[in-house]
Amino acid sequence: MGLVVQKYGGSSVADAEGIKRVAKRIVEAKKNGHQVVVVVSAMGDTTDELIDLAGQVSPFPAGREFDMLLTAGERISMALLAMAIKNLGHEAQSFTGSQAGVITDSVHGKARIIDVTPGRIQQSVDAGNIAIVAGFQGVSQDSKDITTLGRGGSDTTAVALAAALNAEVCEIYTDVDGVFTADPRVVKKARKIDWISFEDMLELASSGSKVLLHRCVEYARRYNIPIHVRSSFSGLKGTWVSNEPQGGQPMEQAIISGVAHDTSEAKVTVVGVPDKPGEAATIFRAVADAEVNIDMVVQNVSAASTGLTDISFTLPKAEGRRAVEALERTRDRVGFESLRYDDQIAKISLVGAGMKTNPGVTAAFFEALSNAGVNIELISTSEIRISVVTRADDVNDAVRAVHSAFGLDSDSDEAVVYGGTGR
Amino acid sequence: MGLVVQKYGGSSVADAEGIKRVAKRIVEAKKNGHQVVVVVSAMGDTTDELIDLAGQVSPFPAGREFDMLLTAGERISMALLAMAIKNLGHEAQSFTGSQAGVITDSVHGKARIIDVTPGRIQQSVDAGNIAIVAGFQGVSQDSKDITTLGRGGSDTTAVALAAALNAEVCEIYTDVDGVFTADPRVVKKARKIDWISFEDMLELASSGSKVLLHRCVEYARRYNIPIHVRSSFSGLKGTWVSNEPQGGQPMEQAIISGVAHDTSEAKVTVVGVPDKPGEAATIFRAVADAEVNIDMVVQNVSAASTGLTDISFTLPKAEGRRAVEALERTRDRVGFESLRYDDQIAKISLVGAGMKTNPGVTAAFFEALSNAGVNIELISTSEIRISVVTRADDVNDAVRAVHSAFGLDSDSDEAVVYGGTGR
Repeated sequence: MGLVVQKYGGSSVADAEGIKRVAKRIVEAKKNGHQVVVVVSAMGDTTDELIDLAGQVSPFPAGREFDMLLTAGERISMALLAMAIKNLGHEAQSFTGSQAGVITDSVHGKARIIDVTPGRIQQSVDAGNIAIVAGFQGVSQDSKDITTLGRGGSDTTAVALAAALNAEVCEIYTDVDGVFTADPRVVKKARKIDWISFEDMLELASSGSKVLLHRCVEYARRYNIPIHVRSSFSGLKGTWVSNEPQGGQPMEQAIISGVAHDTSEAKVTVVGVPDKPGEAATIFRAVADAEVNIDMVVQNVSAASTGLTDISFTLPKAEGRRAVEALERTRDRVGFESLRYDDQIAKISLVGAGMKTNPGVTAAFFEALSNAGVNIELISTSEIRISVVTRADDVNDAVRAVHSAFGLDSDSDEAVVYGGTGR
Repeated sequence: MGLVVQKYGGSSVADAEGIKRVAKRIVEAKKNGHQVVVVVSAMGDTTDELIDLAGQVSPFPAGREFDMLLTAGERISMALLAMAIKNLGHEAQSFTGSQAGVITDSVHGKARIIDVTPGRIQQSVDAGNIAIVAGFQGVSQDSKDITTLGRGGSDTTAVALAAALNAEVCEIYTDVDGVFTADPRVVKKARKIDWISFEDMLELASSGSKVLLHRCVEYARRYNIPIHVRSSFSGLKGTWVSNEPQGGQPMEQAIISGVAHDTSEAKVTVVGVPDKPGEAATIFRAVADAEVNIDMVVQNVSAASTGLTDISFTLPKAEGRRAVEALERTRDRVGFESLRYDDQIAKISLVGAGMKTNPGVTAAFFEALSNAGVNIELISTSEIRISVVTRADDVNDAVRAVHSAFGLDSDSDEAVVYGGTGR
């Protein structure tokens, strides 16, 4: 039996009862003969309470001090978890990110992990302890200041430690049973996925699935660390994310892994752009310089009569104002006619490596949307994904229609035949 | 202008308003041209809340994890304080005990400082920052584990940093105006002491005065760091504790510094001890092995008729049970008749280096108690202190009577003449 890294989120350790429940589960893994390293987030609302406190003393808290403040949250949860484990008769030691060797760059609030040197963790587990590590935090290589990793930071800590410790698996415990074929709040018949490849999971994560963040899956893929996403409440087997299906899983990958949707984006359309070389470059340079992350990009075919074209792209709503202001400043240089900003859109994505070799997936996707009366505004594709932008109001109908059309509903027999040829 | 270390206790930073008020005071010191290092305790009730959380997950929290948990408290207050200072337009950086170079032994919960290596703090203040340091915590030399310093730990952190940084003064900010000639809650006419020697302060601290703990004063005396105890609320000048009176202070020390009282002790009497060599040694070895800290010890003159004597000593109430149990186990060996345990006692102490050279202080002390109708049960003296044990019910009357008799009352003219000869 090898080493297992388990990660528990804030909702799993929201109070003393939660901590005791999690402690029991950790001890079970230890009893099963594993070496166990646990990564834990701050308890429930702790982080929000600390952010609120910071707001009370300063409207613009400095990054270094904000990180120092927030990391108190995991310090509390990890120490309590170690106590709860020891109370069950097993040895446990807690470690800060710094003590665990999580070395980062110096970008406070969203530091990247540069290196992991888990010597103290390895020593601790080799001595028979369960090691508890604070998620979400590290120490900067240059200044030795405390840093936080930003969104999904604790999951990333867990995967990074799993890689550095050569773990068998990184178990991500959460408040849902795993990754589903669609958001179960939207699609009642959504099914839990038993196994999904890193590639499909990456596409789902960047298409709006919230269970695992892109960053963590990317890290796991790079170091080939199998992730097991599961519930800390139910004890059920969850979803394996890995290169190859795990023991007992079907070896043949489903054609379609799932349907993701995202209502966090807005659409910007630059209307009446002169259709000559360099205009698009000027536009996207301006957007990039404003540090806006764009997602889908579509350029209309130029109207021959006017020599003008429209360029549309999607971006996070939170970055909309910044993008529009940056574009306004290029208006004279580019000579476009107008800007349109639309935040009432949704993106629906169909993900599955199987679509590469199965003709007709695209056609079936569009047919399903059409039958549901959903209009398509933008289209973008990758090898294993098709995404469309629709009206925000249509998102639930669209997701349900597509989920059903591809035989993903839990009462479906999965035998879906695609018409047409080619993708 | 040199370097100043300021220490703020939990009641001074109990909420966001308190933190902002303290930030202003710190910035004033900086504006006056000082390099400023600040030691801060956890906010108000934070430590109690964390202790409560620990109790919810484990009845016997392990020392290492308990220290990890508690140190989250200062992490929060120091980060918030740094933010509040930066919000006033001054640069500030917060540092954990470990980052500040507070090296301790490995005794979790009451670690002793072994060394202070404040290289990062010196760098930070040399670069123009105000450095904020977490009080009460350090890192163990051997295992690199986080430790806490126990009672009075933040004051000790401040004095230790002041010594290591060669500070001009260590300012201890608290919720009272300084050290008083008696507890102002008991003696309405108690006066604030402007200056007191390390020696007198040490005696007051070990006699029940709560403003400064013995440990912190002892550290300051060893490294000759002047302490200025003052209120973080009033802005008044407080009490200087040092070898020599500070500028503007009267150079002649008062005969008597103050009256301290202590109701936290109990009295154990071993009745009917055979008066032969070695019996007392056996008794106190048993008590010492039970890790009981004894204070006053008195042995009666042996009664010639019986060859038996009584031995009484005082000790912290919390250690009473341990002491009595340890003594019961020696009963057969020592052959004493019985044990008496009495926790309804008080200790009243008169402290002042001046009493060494002023005859009649002891007599005047006993006369004051006698006039107040207070009975004396035990007496113990040092060069600069007389202590008596009385009934707990008599403590307030006794303290007031002595305070008044030695001209310490705020409406007194201080001209006290002692009758009698010798001490």
